[in-house]
Parts: sequence; C-alpha cells; structure tokens
Amino acid sequence: MKAFNIQSVSKDILADLKHKIDNKTKPIGALGQLEEIAAQIGSIQNSLNPKLSKPAIVVFAGDHGIAADGAVNLYPQEVTWQMVYNFLAGGAAINVFANQNEIDIKVVDAGVNHDFEPNPKLIDAKVAKGTKNYLHEPAMTEEQSIEAIEKGAEIVKNIEQQGCNIIGFGEMGIGNTSAASLLMSALTKVPIEQCVGSGTGLDGQGVERKKQVLSEVMQKHNENSSVLNVLSYYGGFEIAMICGGILQATELGMVIMIDGFIVTSALLVASKLHPEVLDYCLFAHTSEEKGHKKLLDYLSAKPILNINMRLGEGTGAAVAYPIIKSAVSFLNEMASFESAGVSNKN
Amino acid sequence: MKAFNIQSVSKDILADLKHKIDNKTKPIGALGQLEEIAAQIGSIQNSLNPKLSKPAIVVFAGDHGIAADGAVNLYPQEVTWQMVYNFLAGGAAINVFANQNEIDIKVVDAGVNHDFEPNPKLIDAKVAKGTKNYLHEPAMTEEQSIEAIEKGAEIVKNIEQQGCNIIGFGEMGIGNTSAASLLMSALTKVPIEQCVGSGTGLDGQGVERKKQVLSEVMQKHNENSSVLNVLSYYGGFEIAMICGGILQATELGMVIMIDGFIVTSALLVASKLHPEVLDYCLFAHTSEEKGHKKLLDYLSAKPILNINMRLGEGTGAAVAYPIIKSAVSFLNEMASFESAGVSNKN
Repeated sequence: MKAFNIQSVSKDILADLKHKIDNKTKPIGALGQLEEIAAQIGSIQNSLNPKLSKPAIVVFAGDHGIAADGAVNLYPQEVTWQMVYNFLAGGAAINVFANQNEIDIKVVDAGVNHDFEPNPKLIDAKVAKGTKNYLHEPAMTEEQSIEAIEKGAEIVKNIEQQGCNIIGFGEMGIGNTSAASLLMSALTKVPIEQCVGSGTGLDGQGVERKKQVLSEVMQKHNENSSVLNVLSYYGGFEIAMICGGILQATELGMVIMIDGFIVTSALLVASKLHPEVLDYCLFAHTSEEKGHKKLLDYLSAKPILNINMRLGEGTGAAVAYPIIKSAVSFLNEMASFESAGVSNKN
Repeated sequence: MKAFNIQSVSKDILADLKHKIDNKTKPIGALGQLEEIAAQIGSIQNSLNPKLSKPAIVVFAGDHGIAADGAVNLYPQEVTWQMVYNFLAGGAAINVFANQNEIDIKVVDAGVNHDFEPNPKLIDAKVAKGTKNYLHEPAMTEEQSIEAIEKGAEIVKNIEQQGCNIIGFGEMGIGNTSAASLLMSALTKVPIEQCVGSGTGLDGQGVERKKQVLSEVMQKHNENSSVLNVLSYYGGFEIAMICGGILQATELGMVIMIDGFIVTSALLVASKLHPEVLDYCLFAHTSEEKGHKKLLDYLSAKPILNINMRLGEGTGAAVAYPIIKSAVSFLNEMASFESAGVSNKN
C-alpha cells in the first residue's frame, strides 16, 4: 500500500492562538466550543489567521454483499444506485445542505452494484459491483482494500489541488451500518451487540435479527487480525475509500469533517493505521445510530451538533459547516478589547 | 399597556407537513430535530412551503443600577456603552456571526447609562440612563416597564414591515444575568441559588457573593406580585423591551429565535402574560450560564446547539440560524421517493 507521510499537528502556536482568542471583546471562554474549533484549525494551519477555502464533501457509494437478501437492511440494495442518481440530480438531503452552505459535492462510485452511464458529475472509482457477503467469505480481498484506499487518496489529492483545505466525507450504501458495526466491534473490542443499531429504521425485531447475524459473522473471523484484514473482511469499498481519503487529507494538512457512524468507522480504521489523523478531525455530529456515541467516546471526540440526525451522505458535516465557519470568522474578524476601546474585567 | 392579539399556532397543517417530510428521500425521522423545526415553522406560517425572509436580530442594550458598584459583576458598567460602540463599528461577535449568515442587525439603546451622539445605526429607545438599584428600590417603575414593552413592540413591528419574518433577540447590559436570575426565581419558584451563575466569569467567591446579594433582594420583594410588578422590580429595560418584542413578533406570526439566559428570562415574562408565545419560539442554544438549562427545561424547550457558549448579544441565535435554514431548505428542496425514482423501504 502507498505510504502516507503523516505528522501530528504541532502545538507550538496554541499559546498565541489562545492569547488572540482571549483578547477578543468577550469574556474568557464565552464562545465555548467555537474557541476550541478555532484553536484546532489555527493549529492545523499553523496560523493565527486560518482560512477555510473551497469546502468540499465527497460522497462515496458502495454496495454490500450482505444486503442482497435483506438480512440486515430495511431498504432494498437497489436504493444505493437509485440514491446515486438522486445525488447527481441534486435532490438528496446532502445536495440541499451543501448548496445552502456553498460546499462543493463530489459523488464517487466506489463499488455500486449497477452500471452507470458515463456522467461528468460521477467519479468512477468502482472496485467491483458490490462486496461479497461476509456471511460466507471476506467482503473484499486485501488487494481490493488497498485499491480502494489508494483511489480514495487520489480523489482527495485532486480536490486539494483545486484549492480545497477543508473536506468532509459522506457515504451511501445499503447495509453499511452493519459493516461499520463490525469494524467498530473488531477494532475497539466493544461487544457487537452494543455496536448495532436500527440503521435506516429497523424495528426491535429487525435489530435483534441484525445483532444475531452480525454476531455469527464476528465468530467466524479471527479478532486478532491486522487492521487491513479486518477492513477487508467486513468491507466496504466506500468505507475503505473514506479511510484512504482521510489519510491523504491528513498528509496534506487539511481540516477534516467527520460525519456519522459509517464515516467514523472509516476514521477508526485510519486511526488504527496512523493515530495522528485524529488531530485533523472535527466531529460534525452525534448520530442517532446506536453505536455512534460510544464510538465517538472511544475516539475522545467532541461532536458539534447533537440534533438526532442519522441520515449519512455527509449531511451532518454539511449542516455543521457554518458552525465551523463561525469559529474561524470570530478569530479573524472580531475586535480586541484594545482595538475596540472596551474596558477589560475588573 | 397595549393589548396584544396573540393566538396559538394552529396544528391543522401538521399532518400534511409530516406526510411531506416522510416522503423525502431519507428514512423516516432521519433528519432528527431538523424535521421538528421544519414542522414548527410550517405550522407557524400555515404552509407546506414556508420561507424565511430577511432574518434580523435586534440587540437591546441597557444598564442596571446594581452594576454601578460591582457587587455582582466582573466587568465595569461602562462596558455596556463601550460594547454598543463595538456593535456599531461591527467588531463584536454578533456582528461577525450575523454578517457570516446574512442576518440584519439592529442595535437599540434601551436604557444605557451614556449619552450617545445621534447615529443612524443606533435606534434610540432610551427609557432612562440605567435602572435603579433593586437593593434599595424597584429597578423600574411600572410605567417604565410598559414604556419599554411598547417600545420593543414598536421596533419589531417596523422590522416586520420591512419584510422580515424570522427575528432573534440579543442583549448587552453589565449585570443583566442578575436580573435574569431574579426574574427566573420569582416566576418559576426555583430557589435563587439555583438560578445564579458566573455571568461573564465570576470565580467561586464572586458567585457566592452574587448569590448572597440576590437572596437579600428576593427577600425584600413580595413574591406574589403581578408579572408586571416582578419585571419592574428586577428590570431591566433591555429585558422588558425584548419581552415586548417577543409579544409583538408573536402577534405578527413571526418565527422567533431565542438566544441565551437573559433573552430566555424575557421570554419567561412574556409567556407568563401570554403562554401562546412559546409556539413561535425556536431555542437557539443552551448557554453555559448556570440557570439556563433549568429555565429551558421549565419551558419544555429543546435547544438546537449545545456548544457551551455564554456570550449573549444574540450570538447563539446568529450561530444557530443556518441550522434553522437547513430545516426549511430540506422541506422545500429535497426530492420525494416518487419524484426521484427511489424505492421505499421493504
């Protein structure tokens, strides 16, 4: 696999950033998490005047072998490719939110079980027409995992070359909460039952069946495998590409917006390869999907929004983006006590 | 006092709104609180296609007699008028966030202890140069309360006539967390100690002193007084004007964005006069100021943001506004399963 040159974010500028923040015309700490976000972005860019440039969200779509027979999923597999068309036509939630917040959207066929006609808006990175069913065999070969990681990295590199320095990831793939649950359980050792949720909206019985199916899968796989082997066993192509995209974005020093449960599972994989990636991540929201809060806690992540969203597609990142922008805006634009002629505290 | 013609929001359109929301290309409920906000705004406007028009935030500034000697406040009283100049110059946090999110800002002198030269950007609604000190006498006369309520209402009416249908309120007034705490305790019967926080950043000792001072004040005042009497006793002018602004906005069927602790205390007063005002309110955030969460719970409010802000000025409303916009955007712009040709669930 391509070697990524990944560094921790230097803390050298933090004291100067804190000084600048504390001299804004407001009580110390009064902007709460916005101050933390400003300090983090300033550190990532090693600047007292960080800028957000050409924000983008890349939506990776892929199919999962497990979903073909409906064992774990409420919606049929065909919804994956149908939703890709919806993204291309601009009708999905991610389109609406990205459009509102002036975020560029890229849609990637990471491995959808459908033949798309060539479309300038669709990035063709298809590895295969869906993963295999991990009830019977590994979802992906290790070669496919590597191919997906490298394709994800390449896509992010191209986006960065166009001037983007803040990137979010989204996904679409019927069945992919199951893959995320399996990755989470295998890599965090949290029991699979605690990692499984209702996905797009399974009822209690459906969730129980999903837990049973995924418990069986966990038992078949050697839990002491390598990270790459775990990723390959459970899939999927979109998750592996997001993992590669995160690694590449980190190498390039970009600010990374992490969306919901599936994107966070891809980050989990990336962080097991290079823990420094976490320095570059802002966590857009806590998803209602059951495993997400626990996974965020595992990563010591502090999400921005907690508004019970659970849609995926990168929608949490798109909706949270203005908050991130507010953090950078106050750092750059607010007056200081001195410049505004305002008395500081007694 | 001017009679306000205030009606509950009709629930007649809710079923149709829910049907429209549930047919968007997403799992049922997957947009969480955005769906609730969309349904509320649709109901307020009695429309399946609600629009947000010319958003505005009105920042009311006023001084408090109690603050003159520093008994409860960390910053000196002069910061109130200095910050008004900061608002007018565009250097405060509220300016930055409003500018980012294309929200019009109005700054009102509700009763600042300073003589401002005429300025087209400053609305002169001064009732007096600060309230009286409620340690010794009522902060405001009932006549002053009524004057402030009516001036606040008039300002909102003018803004609405310019095409605004969503309005937020902000405030600036050294010492006004004390007034808000007193109003909260008197009107909710929550003991004053639980309503008092660190304001702009008092240390533990400072908070204890503030609690003692405000407990003494509470003991002097008859807790069974009328709402208008309570408001008058504790003040301040900016709180009374926000109360009047909220009542007027409700009468006009506007969407109202409630900011932090002080604005919520003004809403509490308004809701004791006309409980229906709550139907029109979106709660922007939970402030770090201690009493706010309890006050929100008392009002059965579900705030949008929980990011530890505690600045006032309307900053919570300004930062949360894009989330509110996202709710309206998805309702108007997302495709339905039918229009996008996407299969619904199994």
